[in-house]
Amino acid sequence: MKLYYAPNTCALASHIVLEEVGAQYEAVRISFAANEHLSAAYAAINPKARVPSLTTDRGVLTETPAILTFIAQSYPDAGLVPTDDAFAFAELQAFNAYLCSTVHVAHAHRMRGTRWVDDPAALEAMRRNVPHTVGACFDLIERSMFQGPFVMGERYTICDPYLFTLAQWWEVDGVDPGRFPQLAEHRRRIAERSAVKRAITLQMS
Amino acid sequence: MKLYYAPNTCALASHIVLEEVGAQYEAVRISFAANEHLSAAYAAINPKARVPSLTTDRGVLTETPAILTFIAQSYPDAGLVPTDDAFAFAELQAFNAYLCSTVHVAHAHRMRGTRWVDDPAALEAMRRNVPHTVGACFDLIERSMFQGPFVMGERYTICDPYLFTLAQWWEVDGVDPGRFPQLAEHRRRIAERSAVKRAITLQMS
Repeated sequence: MKLYYAPNTCALASHIVLEEVGAQYEAVRISFAANEHLSAAYAAINPKARVPSLTTDRGVLTETPAILTFIAQSYPDAGLVPTDDAFAFAELQAFNAYLCSTVHVAHAHRMRGTRWVDDPAALEAMRRNVPHTVGACFDLIERSMFQGPFVMGERYTICDPYLFTLAQWWEVDGVDPGRFPQLAEHRRRIAERSAVKRAITLQMS
Repeated sequence: MKLYYAPNTCALASHIVLEEVGAQYEAVRISFAANEHLSAAYAAINPKARVPSLTTDRGVLTETPAILTFIAQSYPDAGLVPTDDAFAFAELQAFNAYLCSTVHVAHAHRMRGTRWVDDPAALEAMRRNVPHTVGACFDLIERSMFQGPFVMGERYTICDPYLFTLAQWWEVDGVDPGRFPQLAEHRRRIAERSAVKRAITLQMS
C-alpha cells in the first residue's frame, strides 16, 4: 500500500492508523506548494486532487472515513473498529462523518475558500468567521459527543486519531483549546502514543 | 425505529433505504419553517439540530453515511452493502463520504451559507457560485466515479439512493442535467423503483 499525503492535512489520521496496525506501506509526500496534487500523474490516482489517497492491490481508496475503516477492518486484531455490531460501528461512522462533513469543512473556509467563492471580500468574510464556526463544532463534540477517555468511551478506535488530527488545527484556526478541557486532554494523551509520534516524525522528515 | 426527516433534504436517502429493506419504522416530519429542529425536544435527539436522525433501541444515529450503512447491515438479505469484503465496502464509504463532505456542502452554500458567514455580500457571492461548484462535483462523478448502471457497477447499493437524493437538487441549484447523461439516466431509473416512490409519497403527504 502507498499512502499519498501532504503535511498538516487530514491525511495524518490515515498515517497514524497505518502505524497503529503495523501495516507494510510506503508514505508518498505530495507537495501542494509545487502543485503536485494538480499533476496528471496524481489525477490518475485521485481525480479529486486531494489527499489522502491509499493505493492497494485492489485499487485506490480516497476519503479519510473510508480509508480509516478499510485499514482497521484489514487488521482486525488491532481492534480499532467494532466487528459484528452494526450499531456500534455506525456510531463510529457517524462521528467520523461529522468530522469530514462539518468540522473539516468549517476549517477549510480559512485557507480553501476558493472551493466555494472567488470574490476576495467573501473569502475574507469566510476567514474571519472560522474561529467561531470551528470553535462551535468542537464545543458540540466536547459537550455532546465525546464519551471519554476516548471518543467512543473506554476503547481507542479510528475516531481518536481523526479527532486528534483535526484538533492540530485549533491554534492556526484561532480557536482556544482552553474551551475544550476534555478534548485538550485527549489531544495531549493521543500525542504520546508511539504510533502517533512515528507518523508525525515521518511526515515532518 | 423512528426516522426524523424534513422534506427536500438528504434524509430522503435514509427513508428510501428503510423502504428498500422493508424495515418497520415510523417517519417523523420536522418542520424547518416552524424551527422544530431548533427545539429543546429535538436537541435531546440530535444536538446538531439537523436531519436525518434515526432512533433505535440502542440509541440515536445521525449522519447519512452512518445511517445508510446501519440499515443495510441490519438487513443483510437486501444486499445493499458488501459483506466480508473490506475493500468493496470502503469503495462505497468513499463515494458516500464524497457526497456528504463535498457535494452536499457545495449545495449548502446556496441556502445555508450562514453556517459559514454572516455578511450578506459574502452569502450572495456563495450563492452565485453554486451552479459552478455543484456542477463540477457531478461532472467528476459522471466522468470518474460512476461505474454504471449503478454507482458501484452491476449492483444497487446504498450509494444509489444517496446519489439520487442529491441529484434532486440539480434544478434548484441551477445545474443542467444535460451535462451528466449517465447520472440523468440513473436518476430517471432510480425514480421508478417502488421503494423510492413510496418514500417520496410518504414525505410529500
